[in-house]
Amino acid sequence: MAIEGVDIIRSAAFLGAGFCMGLGAIGPGVGEGMAAAKACEAIGKNPKEAGLLTRTMLVGQAVTESTGIYSLVIALLLLFVV
Amino acid sequence: MAIEGVDIIRSAAFLGAGFCMGLGAIGPGVGEGMAAAKACEAIGKNPKEAGLLTRTMLVGQAVTESTGIYSLVIALLLLFVV
Amino acid sequence: MAIEGVDIIRSAAFLGAGFCMGLGAIGPGVGEGMAAAKACEAIGKNPKEAGLLTRTMLVGQAVTESTGIYSLVIALLLLFVV
Amino acid sequence: MAIEGVDIIRSAAFLGAGFCMGLGAIGPGVGEGMAAAKACEAIGKNPKEAGLLTRTMLVGQAVTESTGIYSLVIALLLLFVV
Amino acid sequence: MAIEGVDIIRSAAFLGAGFCMGLGAIGPGVGEGMAAAKACEAIGKNPKEAGLLTRTMLVGQAVTESTGIYSLVIALLLLFVV
Amino acid sequence: MAIEGVDIIRSAAFLGAGFCMGLGAIGPGVGEGMAAAKACEAIGKNPKEAGLLTRTMLVGQAVTESTGIYSLVIALLLLFVV
Amino acid sequence: MAIEGVDIIRSAAFLGAGFCMGLGAIGPGVGEGMAAAKACEAIGKNPKEAGLLTRTMLVGQAVTESTGIYSLVIALLLLFVV
Amino acid sequence: MAIEGVDIIRSAAFLGAGFCMGLGAIGPGVGEGMAAAKACEAIGKNPKEAGLLTRTMLVGQAVTESTGIYSLVIALLLLFVV
Amino acid sequence: MAIEGVDIIRSAAFLGAGFCMGLGAIGPGVGEGMAAAKACEAIGKNPKEAGLLTRTMLVGQAVTESTGIYSLVIALLLLFVV
Amino acid sequence: MAIEGVDIIRSAAFLGAGFCMGLGAIGPGVGEGMAAAKACEAIGKNPKEAGLLTRTMLVGQAVTESTGIYSLVIALLLLFVV
Amino acid sequence: MAIEGVDIIRSAAFLGAGFCMGLGAIGPGVGEGMAAAKACEAIGKNPKEAGLLTRTMLVGQAVTESTGIYSLVIALLLLFVV
Amino acid sequence: MAIEGVDIIRSAAFLGAGFCMGLGAIGPGVGEGMAAAKACEAIGKNPKEAGLLTRTMLVGQAVTESTGIYSLVIALLLLFVV
Amino acid sequence: MAIEGVDIIRSAAFLGAGFCMGLGAIGPGVGEGMAAAKACEAIGKNPKEAGLLTRTMLVGQAVTESTGIYSLVIALLLLFVV
Amino acid sequence: MAIEGVDIIRSAAFLGAGFCMGLGAIGPGVGEGMAAAKACEAIGKNPKEAGLLTRTMLVGQAVTESTGIYSLVIALLLLFVV
Repeated sequence: MAIEGVDIIRSAAFLGAGFCMGLGAIGPGVGEGMAAAKACEAIGKNPKEAGLLTRTMLVGQAVTESTGIYSLVIALLLLFVV
Repeated sequence: MAIEGVDIIRSAAFLGAGFCMGLGAIGPGVGEGMAAAKACEAIGKNPKEAGLLTRTMLVGQAVTESTGIYSLVIALLLLFVV
Repeated sequence: MAIEGVDIIRSAAFLGAGFCMGLGAIGPGVGEGMAAAKACEAIGKNPKEAGLLTRTMLVGQAVTESTGIYSLVIALLLLFVV
Repeated sequence: MAIEGVDIIRSAAFLGAGFCMGLGAIGPGVGEGMAAAKACEAIGKNPKEAGLLTRTMLVGQAVTESTGIYSLVIALLLLFVV
Repeated sequence: MAIEGVDIIRSAAFLGAGFCMGLGAIGPGVGEGMAAAKACEAIGKNPKEAGLLTRTMLVGQAVTESTGIYSLVIALLLLFVV
Repeated sequence: MAIEGVDIIRSAAFLGAGFCMGLGAIGPGVGEGMAAAKACEAIGKNPKEAGLLTRTMLVGQAVTESTGIYSLVIALLLLFVV
Repeated sequence: MAIEGVDIIRSAAFLGAGFCMGLGAIGPGVGEGMAAAKACEAIGKNPKEAGLLTRTMLVGQAVTESTGIYSLVIALLLLFVV
Repeated sequence: MAIEGVDIIRSAAFLGAGFCMGLGAIGPGVGEGMAAAKACEAIGKNPKEAGLLTRTMLVGQAVTESTGIYSLVIALLLLFVV
Repeated sequence: MAIEGVDIIRSAAFLGAGFCMGLGAIGPGVGEGMAAAKACEAIGKNPKEAGLLTRTMLVGQAVTESTGIYSLVIALLLLFVV
Repeated sequence: MAIEGVDIIRSAAFLGAGFCMGLGAIGPGVGEGMAAAKACEAIGKNPKEAGLLTRTMLVGQAVTESTGIYSLVIALLLLFVV
Repeated sequence: MAIEGVDIIRSAAFLGAGFCMGLGAIGPGVGEGMAAAKACEAIGKNPKEAGLLTRTMLVGQAVTESTGIYSLVIALLLLFVV
Repeated sequence: MAIEGVDIIRSAAFLGAGFCMGLGAIGPGVGEGMAAAKACEAIGKNPKEAGLLTRTMLVGQAVTESTGIYSLVIALLLLFVV
Repeated sequence: MAIEGVDIIRSAAFLGAGFCMGLGAIGPGVGEGMAAAKACEAIGKNPKEAGLLTRTMLVGQAVTESTGIYSLVIALLLLFVV
Repeated sequence: MAIEGVDIIRSAAFLGAGFCMGLGAIGPGVGEGMAAAKACEAIGKNPKEAGLLTRTMLVGQAVTESTGIYSLVIALLLLFVV
């Protein structure tokens, strides 16, 4: 009834999940913010192309989001599947 | 009645939750701030397109917010579900 | 009456709460400052749109604030609910 | 009369409070400084709008201050309530 | 029934998976965000070439994504195969 | 007469106080320096508004100072009240 | 049946694999993103040379990718061969 | 006559004092340097206002110095009062 | 059959290999990306010299790659020869 | 004659002194360098005001030096008085 | 047959070799990349001097490479000679 | 004849001396380099004032050097006096 | 035949050698790269002075190299003489 | 014949020497590189003053070198005198 191996495994998994999602949110957060900032700047200069620019921004952000989603997937796997 | 495995698991989960949300707030916070900054700059130059620019800013920030929300989800899961 | 499991859990929760809020205040603090800086710059150039720009700044900061509030929520949960 | 659990809890709470407020002062400090810097620059260029610009700066800084205040709240809770 | 070697191996694998994906998301996230930002800027200046620019952005982001995917692969291998 | 719990609590409080004030001085120090730098620049360009600019700089710095003062308060509480 | 040497070796290998791929993804991710960003900017200015520029970007990114692939190779060797 | 609690308390206080003053000198040092740099630049451009600019620089630096002095106070308290 | 010295040696070698390749990929990755970015920019301005510029870029990247290859060599030596 | 409390106190004081002065030299060193750099730049443009600019630089550096001197004071106190 | 001193020596040497080469690749990698980037930029502007510029770039990179080679030498000495 | 208190004190003093001088060389090194860089730039533009500029650079560097010398003093005190 | 003091001394020396050379390669690597980059830029603008510029670059890099060589010397002393 | 105090002292001295020289090479390396870079740029623009500029660069670098030499001195003292 003392500390067993499975407890240490789960502890490591939970710590790993926390750092995985925490660190993994830094890159996409900054990157998508840069995309949004430049899109606003471009629309301010050329508002007629707002639809085109919003679409480009969203496509670019969607790809950027991918590593954030990978982090989410790994964190969820560490929480539930393992 | 001494320290048991489940205590270590919960400790790891709580530490992980703290770092997950703490680190996960850095990226979106900086990124959304960049978007808001550029939107203000653009509206100052082209105030007639303020609605369009605010909408673009909010859409861009909403996507940027996503990794912050993922961090919140993982942190809540570490607190309550685990 | 020696150290028991619940003590370690609470210690981890309190350390986690401290780092969660401490780290989580960096990103929004820098981001909102960038928004405020650019809003002041824009109003200086185009003071007639001050109301519009202040509104945009506040909307942008409100979204940026969100990850800071998430950190507050997680920290409070670590302090009281857990 | 040796080290008991409550001592470890309080130690963790005090360390957490220190890091919470220490780290939490970095972001708002830098951010509000950026806002103040840009406000001075704008007033230098357009001194007639000094009242408007000071008001905008203060509003922007007030929002930026919020994450600093959250850190203060969490640190005080860690010191006194817990 | 105490802690055995396989438990330590799995703990290390889970911690490693967390850091692998967490750190591995920083670089591609920032890099892809830069690509998206510049694509928006370029489309705002030259909207007739939007298709060409979106294609270039996506090709560039796809290559940038590769190291993020490598991190995902290593993290999944650490979770399931090992 | 060996190490007791209250000693560990005070040790943690003193370490926490040191890091709290040390880290908490970084942000306001850099931020207020930026404000002072820009105020000097603006006064150099527009010396007739020196009073107005000094006032704005001081107001902006006063708000920026706040997180530094919060750190001082928490550090003093960790030293004396706890 | 307790912890043996081979368990510690494998633990170190798995932790090393995680950090190897995680850290090794930062550099190429940022670098390739810079290349993609500049390629988009150049195509926006000179769309007639889009093929040439895309080819140059891909060649440059392919070389940049190499250190990311080295990291992948070392991580895989740490997982399977060792 | 072995290690007692008061020794650990003083050790923590001395370590804390060292980090408090060491870290607390970074921010004001960089910030005041920025103010001095900009003041020199401004005086070079507008030497007739040298007195005004030096005064502004000193006022701005005095406020910036405050967090450095707070660090000194906390460090001295950790050394002597505690 | 317990932990012997050779196990600790191999563990250190594997951890060292991981950090060696992981850290060693950051510098060349960023550096080669800068070279590729500037080559794209230059070709966009002067497409007639594309061959010359691509050759220069590749030569420059090949030298930059060298420290990445050194890291690979050391990591492989740590894995297999030692 | 084994390790006693006063030994640990002195060890902590010496480590603290080292970090206090080491970290405390970073900020003023960088800040004063910025002031010196800008003073050289300004004198190069306006050599007639060299005396005035050198005086301003020295006054600004003297204030910047203060946090470095505080660090020296705390380090000396940790070495000799304590 | 337990852990002996020579095992600890070799472990330290291998860890040291890994960090030596890993950290030592960052500086030259970034520096050589900057040289290659500026050479590409200069050749794009002045392609007639391509030979001269490539030679200068290679000479500059060769000197920059030196610290990377020192790191390689120290790492190899740590692996084989020691 | 085993480890005594004075050994630990000296160990701490030597480690502290190493970090004190190592960290304390970063700030002045970078700061003086900035001053030298700007002095070269200014002399290139205005070579008639070379003597004046060299003198200003040396005065500025001498003040900047002070924190480096403080670090040297503390490190020497840690080595010999203590 | 167990672990003796000389083993710990050599382990510390080898670890110290690794970090000494690894960290010591960062500064000169980046600095020499900056010199090489600016030399290429200057030769591209003024190719007639290529010999003079290459000589200046080499002299400047030779001085910059010195701290890298100091690191090599200390690392070799830690490996062989100690 | 087991581990004695002098072994721990020497271990600390060797580790301290490694970090002292390793960290102490970063600042001067970067700073001298900046000086060399600006000198090359200035000579490219004004080659007639090459001798004057080289002399200024060398004087500036010599002062910058000082903190690197201090680090060397402390490291050598830690190796041989102590």
